[in-house]
This record gives sequence, C-alpha cells and structure tokens, in this order.
Amino acid sequence: MKDIKHIDGGICAPLGFKVAATHCGIRKEKLDLALIVADDVCSCAGVYTKNIVQAAPIKVTKKHLANNQARAIIVNSGNANACTKNGINVANDICSSVAEKINCAKEDIIIASTGVIGVELDAKKIFTKEQELVSNLSADNYIDAAKAIMTTDTYEKYDAIAFDVDGTEVKIGCISKGSGMIHPNMGTMLCFLTTDINICDKLLQEALIEATNDSYNMISVDGDTSTNDMMVIMSSSLANNKIIDNKDDRYFSFLDKLKYFCIEQAKKIAADGEGASKLVTCKVNNAVDEEIAKKVAKAVITSPLVKTAMFGNDANWGRILCAIGYSDNKGINIDNIDIALKSKNGNIDVCQQSFGLNFNEEQALQILKSDEVIIDINLHNGTASATAWGCDLSYDYVKINAEYRS
Amino acid sequence: MKDIKHIDGGICAPLGFKVAATHCGIRKEKLDLALIVADDVCSCAGVYTKNIVQAAPIKVTKKHLANNQARAIIVNSGNANACTKNGINVANDICSSVAEKINCAKEDIIIASTGVIGVELDAKKIFTKEQELVSNLSADNYIDAAKAIMTTDTYEKYDAIAFDVDGTEVKIGCISKGSGMIHPNMGTMLCFLTTDINICDKLLQEALIEATNDSYNMISVDGDTSTNDMMVIMSSSLANNKIIDNKDDRYFSFLDKLKYFCIEQAKKIAADGEGASKLVTCKVNNAVDEEIAKKVAKAVITSPLVKTAMFGNDANWGRILCAIGYSDNKGINIDNIDIALKSKNGNIDVCQQSFGLNFNEEQALQILKSDEVIIDINLHNGTASATAWGCDLSYDYVKINAEYRS
Repeated sequence: MKDIKHIDGGICAPLGFKVAATHCGIRKEKLDLALIVADDVCSCAGVYTKNIVQAAPIKVTKKHLANNQARAIIVNSGNANACTKNGINVANDICSSVAEKINCAKEDIIIASTGVIGVELDAKKIFTKEQELVSNLSADNYIDAAKAIMTTDTYEKYDAIAFDVDGTEVKIGCISKGSGMIHPNMGTMLCFLTTDINICDKLLQEALIEATNDSYNMISVDGDTSTNDMMVIMSSSLANNKIIDNKDDRYFSFLDKLKYFCIEQAKKIAADGEGASKLVTCKVNNAVDEEIAKKVAKAVITSPLVKTAMFGNDANWGRILCAIGYSDNKGINIDNIDIALKSKNGNIDVCQQSFGLNFNEEQALQILKSDEVIIDINLHNGTASATAWGCDLSYDYVKINAEYRS
Repeated sequence: MKDIKHIDGGICAPLGFKVAATHCGIRKEKLDLALIVADDVCSCAGVYTKNIVQAAPIKVTKKHLANNQARAIIVNSGNANACTKNGINVANDICSSVAEKINCAKEDIIIASTGVIGVELDAKKIFTKEQELVSNLSADNYIDAAKAIMTTDTYEKYDAIAFDVDGTEVKIGCISKGSGMIHPNMGTMLCFLTTDINICDKLLQEALIEATNDSYNMISVDGDTSTNDMMVIMSSSLANNKIIDNKDDRYFSFLDKLKYFCIEQAKKIAADGEGASKLVTCKVNNAVDEEIAKKVAKAVITSPLVKTAMFGNDANWGRILCAIGYSDNKGINIDNIDIALKSKNGNIDVCQQSFGLNFNEEQALQILKSDEVIIDINLHNGTASATAWGCDLSYDYVKINAEYRS
C-alpha cells in the first residue's frame, strides 16, 4: 500500500506504550506472560469471539471496556482461563493486582488468556511476576511480548506502520498470535493493536469492527471458533493530529490503513496455521453482493478437501467448485463459474463456465508448489468481491492437535 | 432392534432384484460398474445432494424419478460425471443403452456415478460391458455390486434385514459407499436400497426422507457436501402384504425399521470415513428442541479439533464445549452442560455444569482407546434429543486426500 511505511518497534512503535514479558511458569520454560502499558489511560476498542462459550478474561474485559477506556493489557499463554469454576474471580484478582502496581483503576485493565481450556489458572504465578514486569517496562521489549503470547505459532508476530494524517505522522503497531481454532466470525485469536492517532472512542470502535470484518473475520485455519479470542486497539492520542471525530477523509484514510494493517497480520495467522505449509488466498470477483462473495471465499478456504489438495499440490478444481456449490444456495449462477490458480510461479485457468479445461498438469503442479497460492474465482453475475485467507491441511495439523490439549 | 433379523443377500435379499458387477476400465483393475435390476418396474423414491453443483447423473435421475417409477440402477465408480460439457448427454446415452438391453423405458433407469470430478466419462467403456452385466444378473452378486461402487472405502458395505408386517415377511436390503465428502444435509453418498414391501409411492418417498434425516443426514466425515450423492429405494411390492397407503401402525412400523436400517448403514459410512480409526457418536439429550439437539451433535462430530483429539485419545472436553458454543447461539444454556465420554471400556464424566471435573486421565485414555466412542452431552434445558455420527481425523485422511483427485 502506498502512503504507508513499515517500521520497527512493533506494538511500541506508536507513541506512549511500553511492554514487558516474562516466564511465570504456566508454560514450560517459554515466555508466557506479557504486560502492555500505556503512559496514560487510552481510548480503547475491542472485538471478541462470537462463540457463546466465552472464557473468563473475555467476560471481564468486555465489562472493563464498556467505557472504551483502558490503561494496560495483561495477557498469559498456556492456560485459557476458560470453563473453570474460579475463572472470573481469578481474572478479576489479576486485574486488581496489576492495577495496583501501575496505579490505575481495576476497570482500566484488559485481561486476555490463551491455552488449555478447563484447567484452573493459578493466579499466584502471575501475581509473583507483576512487579518484575512493571519494573522492566520498556519500548524495546516488543518482540518478547510477541513471543509471550504464542501457543502453537511457529514464530512471533508483530509489525508496525507509519503514515501521515494532515501532516502529522501517526503509527499503528501490534502483536498477535494464532494458530488453531481459527475461523471466520470470531475475534479470531489474540491481537493487540496500539496507535497514537487522535480519534474519538466511537470511531475507533467502528474502524476496528470494519477492519476486522475484512481481515481477521476472513481467515480460517480449521473452522473452529475459539472461546478466548480477542482483538483490542488502544490509542494514546499522542500523535497530536487534530482529533478525528466525524467520518471525514481523514477517518477513511485511517480506516484504509488500519484495514491494510489488519489484513497483513491476519494473513500471517493464516500462513502460520497449525501445520500449514502455505498461505491459500481465495479471491472471489463479480459476485451479486459482498455477502455472497465472502461466503464463497470462506467456504473454499475452509473446505478440508480443498485444503488437503493444496497440501498435495493437486489442481483439484472440482473440489473448489464443489465448495462453491454448498456455500450458498442463492445468488450464484452455478453454470458460469471460472476458476484460475495463481502463484509467483505463474497463472493457469482450470475451469471455465463451470467446466474443466484441458490444462497442463505439470504447469499447475509448479504453480501450486509455492508458499502462497491464490485461488481466483469469477462468479460472472455482479460486481462485488471478497478475499479470504487460509492454509493447507497437512499431517502436522493432525499431529499438533492430536497431541496438544488446547 | 427387536422384531427384525439381519439376513444374507444384501441388496438382493428382498424379492424381485438381481445384480451384476464388472470391471469396465474406468478404475484400474477394480470392479467399477454395477447394474441393479428389478424383475418389473418398481415404486421408487430418492434423495439427493443439496449442493447446487450437481453431477449429470443426479440431474438425469431426478428427471427419471419424477414419476416415482424405476426398473434398474446403473452405477459406476472412478468418475463422477460431474462438471463436464457432455455429462448430461453421456448419462442419457447410458440410460438409453441400458434400457434397450433390459427392455424398458429409458426413463425407468436410475443412473449414478462417483469418483473424480471434471473428467469426461467415456460412455463406451460402459456400453461395451452392458450386455455382459445383463447376462450375469443374479441374486448372488450382491457383494460384487457393493465392491463396484467403492472409492476410498476400505471395505464393501451391504446389509439386509427381514421383519414382519401383518404376518407377512418383508425385507430391506442395500449397498452403499462413503467415504469422503460426507456431511450432513446431503444425500450423503451412494446408497441403493431395495425392499419388497407393498407401499404406495408417496409414503415410500416420505419414509425415505424421514429415515435419511435421522441417519445419513446425521453423519459427517469432513464437512464437505458432494456433488454426486444419492440415496434411492426401490420397492418390488412382491412381499404381498396388503398395500400400505396411509399412515397406520404398519407404516410407522416400516418407518422404524427403515430408520434403524439406515442408521446402521450410515454408521458404517462414518466409521469407515477416510483415514478413520474409530466411530465417534455424539448423543445430545435434554435439548429445547430437536433442531438444536441436531445442530449441537453435528457441530461436535464435525469439529476438526474434536476429531483430532479423538484420534489422539485425548479427553479434551474443552474442545467439545467450544464446538457446542459455536453450534447455535440460541436455545442453549451454556452454563449448565454436562459431558461424559463412553465406550465399551467404561464411562467417565468430564464436565459438569460447564466446568471441568477432576477426572482420572488414565481411565479416560482407556475409554477413548476404542473403535467406538460416545460423547454424551446433557443440555439440561428440555426433552429433545439427537444423535450424530462421525470419525476421528487422522494422518491418513490427509494422505488420502492430498493424493486422490476426487
């Protein structure tokens, strides 16, 4: 995207944020606890899993964010604090304890957890590390913070961008984690965003929802919708641009950048899906409306048969057409669909007007042997489009999930 | 089930049916073509995939069965006759050619195909074998017929039962095949049923739909809904019971038996799902209504995370609760759910009132190390119940589908 530049600093790139991470003993040896603190109370917005089984930190955070204000985020990996008797008490106790140490109201603490469901979270492990975290707060620890929230992710995920609003440089940064239980229509995973843009609470929330709908809600790893997923953005307002408090050009410019940034992060989650060997992007064009375009794109990237074919580098377009066929019963002209496969290794048309083309199998194989494959679908009955991101289904997905109690 | 006995003879057990099978060259070396012929034109009913991408044989058979009459079924494996330019012509030509050889109207032929999508079906391969099939028709060939319709199934599926209607013995027989692209809300696979019960067309169709809803529509292997799936029942009426032409006790008795029989067959499909090492049954009790009970049961058996946990013999009830949580947003009291795991090796309660119990992991492991596991869910807010059947998700599912172009 033009007008933006990727910068260092991750979640601490925007003005006004410091982080610290540590090992508190929930996971074996690995970093498992992070604290993100703003210099002052921030505007804050959140989106959450739509699973009706919601972990304690989701419930507590929703309550705390009712006023769209927050000062800090405390997050652990290794235990989801979900479906246990004392979960809510534990989450509340941790919020109180952190609030005391950074001198703010308990309600200004956001809490998040990821990991195994149904095991009591031992708050003591966290209590004993809070002072250390507070003492170590620094804008330099952003990579450790990204590491501390990982579960089955194979690498830490963080990024930051800078762009211009009315001559003022503003920034967005983040840390996030995947990588199983990832499916459209959830907060999707843990993603913590910071920004220093000066924007009113209401528009920050709206922008977050809009950006989520085209990014994190358009990725799928396995079709499972988790109990713990949460995406939060905190704005320090320190960039000192004139406040954005109506939907003017500046709002839409910010929204564009936020959406771009969220899509970039969401693609990382999909590409690092459990056991994934490649990112699979499904682009749907010329649909009757956006809803149908999204349904089709999601159905294709969610289909286990498409996913295994991608793993096997098999140009099995019949499975793609099949998934389109069950994605939506209205609004598709099923007899006039084109499918092409694309990657850095080339493009190939495999299906035209819903019939198979006599394509070169060797060429198709080479195209699919790439770490990023695009399935391009033309529905030929409208002008709407949508893109969804997923990954292939490999032996390793099975291995990881047959062994990991999450 | 009492009042019935399982008998030999498979699809030829009911009076009035003969079959033949052969290798016509679509598959390598294996039997790939079967012909099922009734002595005379029969009452016949069908249900079909709900995928809007429908293979040519589905379209042709629907047309031919508009009058609820049929004489014979011609079915091939190895090629789905789906999404090709000449598919409809090919299917029509085969019907005409078979009809000529058994001396009936073309419209009395049911045609079905299963296999790879998007490759032209070479009708000549079938034409040249039709006379051989007709010459070899016999009630003894029912196992070969079951073999000829297999794709990735690991064993042939056939069965027959006998029971009494008003002092007259009547029979139901079948052949069927799975085992990928299996998901609720489709015809689900190929299943051909025969019976000699004397019943009117309308009630035969109604009974088939009712039986399907509780059997084949309640199994899932991978959440993919195929383009070719079809379930057909032919009744020769030769049992000579007084015709069933209203919903009297005899109708409901027949429906009970048909439902039982279809459930038995559907369970075989689920247990022999691609790569499956075990049958996973999810029983949902005390739901507000049957629809919700079915949604919950289907969500649990479809979840890749539950399926991989079952493969790993991991009593990961958190994933089960999670799947319940995204199955339906209304009609579930998410804070009062009990989950138990059962098999021939014992029973164990793992979750009560939506909280995890402190159960014996070793005992749970032994229970899950079984080729049939039951996940028993109590929703505690009604009296409705439902059962769904699926299988675990193993390395072999990935292997089969990364390599097989279906």
